[in-house]
Amino acid sequence: MGSKGLTDEAVSEACKEGNPITRIHGSLSLVYRRLLQKIDFPSMRFSLYFLGYEERSEIPSEVKERTAWTFSRRGTIELTHNWGSETDENLSHHNGNSEPRGFGHIGIAVPDVYAACKIFEDLGVTFVKKPEAGKMKDLAFIQDPDGYWIEILSPNNMVSLIS
Amino acid sequence: MGSKGLTDEAVSEACKEGNPITRIHGSLSLVYRRLLQKIDFPSMRFSLYFLGYEERSEIPSEVKERTAWTFSRRGTIELTHNWGSETDENLSHHNGNSEPRGFGHIGIAVPDVYAACKIFEDLGVTFVKKPEAGKMKDLAFIQDPDGYWIEILSPNNMVSLIS
Repeated sequence: MGSKGLTDEAVSEACKEGNPITRIHGSLSLVYRRLLQKIDFPSMRFSLYFLGYEERSEIPSEVKERTAWTFSRRGTIELTHNWGSETDENLSHHNGNSEPRGFGHIGIAVPDVYAACKIFEDLGVTFVKKPEAGKMKDLAFIQDPDGYWIEILSPNNMVSLIS
Repeated sequence: MGSKGLTDEAVSEACKEGNPITRIHGSLSLVYRRLLQKIDFPSMRFSLYFLGYEERSEIPSEVKERTAWTFSRRGTIELTHNWGSETDENLSHHNGNSEPRGFGHIGIAVPDVYAACKIFEDLGVTFVKKPEAGKMKDLAFIQDPDGYWIEILSPNNMVSLIS
């Protein structure tokens, strides 16, 4: 598998319905609930995965229609899988939060920050900040399998945090 | 202004209605059309700006309602203004596209890539890739004022690029 990218079947298996709050599976982070589209570029040996908060029933099955639909959603995350990178022992990613600084984090809204964090703890996810820690209570930062920071927040909690 | 963040009035002035395709104003990149919310943290000397594709008429005027609404949109961009950074001659940002690599780019869907790029050219925006260059025609990469890459794409063009 390492040198050819994931098959559609393997991806489908990895994207089975899981916990509705959020889930992380293997090396592909699926805190975004839904894979909208996988696009392979065999000659350049990489695949793109577009994830978003959409209803599965709304994803068009016809590929051209799905492509136009995917790229016109209000918010998606694009993840790149460089084929073979998963077996490269020397590969590392710069998450932007150490020097030289850049990109900070993505944020995911969940209905209940503590319930979501319980699931992350059970999965062995690395925390940058737990929701009960620090000055900014009720929001958390975790790391995805590549080390990127992900903020876990609840829209209603942000009201009391900010006001 | 440098050491205290922007006033609400200055921000409002910077966010006046402009070209409906996209616009960039001063040092704050507004390719995302609409400022949803500005949140100041005076004790930590920074402000957050949340931008998104929403109708101005739908932004709640009451601050608590607006906060809950902002954080429950499907896709927003959060920009940080560290007060005084705009006068720091030594400040630079790592855009993730040189070593050590990390975050790549955000992507913005527009109705017409060439029309949008004409506006960017007229504004003196730096291009990483013009739409007519390279193998992937009809999509462009520009840099925001901090050097981050922004992909300019049209959902319909992606169909012919990918299929």
